[in-house]
Amino acid sequence: MNSSAPTARFPRILGHEAVGLVESVGENVEEVKEGDLVVPVFLPNCGECIDCGSTKSNNCTKFGNKPIRDMPRDGTSRFRDMKGEVVHHLLGVSSFSEYTVVDVTHVVKITHDIPLDKACLLSCGVSTGIGAAWKVADVEKGTTVAIFGLGAVGLAVAVAAKQRGASKIIGVDLNHDKFEIGKQFGITDFVNPSSTSNEKSVSEVIKDMTNGGADYCFECIGLASLMTEAFNSSREGWGKTVIIGVEMHGSPLTLNPYDILKGKTITGSLFGGLKPKSDLPLLAQKYLDKELNLDGFISQEVDFKDINKAFDYLLQGKSIRCIIRMDP
Amino acid sequence: MNSSAPTARFPRILGHEAVGLVESVGENVEEVKEGDLVVPVFLPNCGECIDCGSTKSNNCTKFGNKPIRDMPRDGTSRFRDMKGEVVHHLLGVSSFSEYTVVDVTHVVKITHDIPLDKACLLSCGVSTGIGAAWKVADVEKGTTVAIFGLGAVGLAVAVAAKQRGASKIIGVDLNHDKFEIGKQFGITDFVNPSSTSNEKSVSEVIKDMTNGGADYCFECIGLASLMTEAFNSSREGWGKTVIIGVEMHGSPLTLNPYDILKGKTITGSLFGGLKPKSDLPLLAQKYLDKELNLDGFISQEVDFKDINKAFDYLLQGKSIRCIIRMDP
Repeated sequence: MNSSAPTARFPRILGHEAVGLVESVGENVEEVKEGDLVVPVFLPNCGECIDCGSTKSNNCTKFGNKPIRDMPRDGTSRFRDMKGEVVHHLLGVSSFSEYTVVDVTHVVKITHDIPLDKACLLSCGVSTGIGAAWKVADVEKGTTVAIFGLGAVGLAVAVAAKQRGASKIIGVDLNHDKFEIGKQFGITDFVNPSSTSNEKSVSEVIKDMTNGGADYCFECIGLASLMTEAFNSSREGWGKTVIIGVEMHGSPLTLNPYDILKGKTITGSLFGGLKPKSDLPLLAQKYLDKELNLDGFISQEVDFKDINKAFDYLLQGKSIRCIIRMDP
Repeated sequence: MNSSAPTARFPRILGHEAVGLVESVGENVEEVKEGDLVVPVFLPNCGECIDCGSTKSNNCTKFGNKPIRDMPRDGTSRFRDMKGEVVHHLLGVSSFSEYTVVDVTHVVKITHDIPLDKACLLSCGVSTGIGAAWKVADVEKGTTVAIFGLGAVGLAVAVAAKQRGASKIIGVDLNHDKFEIGKQFGITDFVNPSSTSNEKSVSEVIKDMTNGGADYCFECIGLASLMTEAFNSSREGWGKTVIIGVEMHGSPLTLNPYDILKGKTITGSLFGGLKPKSDLPLLAQKYLDKELNLDGFISQEVDFKDINKAFDYLLQGKSIRCIIRMDP
């Protein structure tokens, strides 16, 4: 993380994908109670603002548009270190901890029927990919899909696109191992940019594979150049490109305006356009109904004391999602 | 026109908005016959290709994606000058002429009930603005709209947005006269970029006027910088920007990818996303049913021999649409 970024505040408790039991609630909290199973989410959902009330947006305007502070209502932290010094929150969640304090707008109550290791997958990345395919793109049966970046988010796009009946799901990744992994999630074809011919860009290769361009393209990395390439890979007439990745260098996105005139669309969302409070329980139910396969996303499990192993797996490209188990 | 542009071929017969009577038809043409009233269109609509068969696209892939040639099927011209030298077509129409030759994919048969001066308005610009508002943006009742550029296309967006019940329709233009003109088309508020405070960009002014950004923004000029400004004027959560203008300098469009992540969409179309053969007759009927006001678009009328007066009006900023009458 860039220490000069406005969101960089240390020391802090990291972690933003989790599941947990409510240990206690504050004053006036009626939505959840002690013992409830909850998934914390970085995206607030107050349920009261104009955006929370609209089916078109998942961008809570009451809490979501403020500068990131510790607790969303008063900006203060609930964490202290051994010396009594402030330790900051992360994204309203801070889950690398046995206990955390979360605003009620940042938790979603879900059924105890769902296994904990599957429930925590719904907390961010996997839900983001599924929502992007189902809600933002609204992938239809028989269509072609190109996914740039086959981490958990991109693989979740694949799972969701496969569930919708996409006829071709092209994965793009520099890590060749991702093709075999991706097949289990619905990837039907693979493009490795490092091994394509020098004469053709990735978008040209994808256009060749899809008779002119994919119906839906997803950028799941966070590189402006890749967003452009995803857009260029989309079909004229109705091609839709969905940006999910958070641009990692602050670079602007550059598009050819003539391509837009040809009927292409570019859009994006945080959290896959999902409204946490209403949509996460639906995803949990789809898992229980066996309409959504979450099992494959868990690549490893470690105990909390071995949390650094989880980062090693990630850095080695071996991890999709590593479950970090708290001691019971 | 830039004489080095790939579409620049001279001598040629200009003009691409018109209405006319079919004088004769070629072999195998069954769709229209002698005496039919037809509106020629620059956008082909073969009715056979995958795009013409889809409700999502108006981008005829059989004829629309080829380099612009004279006649779309064989690339040859049907015009000769007095010396027998080739005179080129323009955009499949070439209407600054008593007679022209048009491929059947470039004409739309419409009812004789519609007056000729209203019918020709449907040939390009006015239809483009209406289609952009109704079909591409799908403007809803009670929403806010910002229109960049108040020529005929932008004013047509206003008429269509007003018809849909938009609550605020902001016009942006450097020509202050356009506010009074625009009011007749539904413009409720006006922003002149040359007279806004130096401290605020147009998008900041529009965000202030719309409590955070317009629901729908339309770029009707063709400047990449203005497309960016239109996008920046759109609301987070669900703001949709529709590009209609053809970028006039070949400049790339630059966007902030973080804004896209906040649920904004940018899209665009040629001809307002309308399918000529099926949609123009509907617009004509809406005019006849008094659901679509076309009267205000005609700012002047001249005889064909005075055609250069029409260009003078245009250059002086006095023209919305000047009807050029052929001798009867």
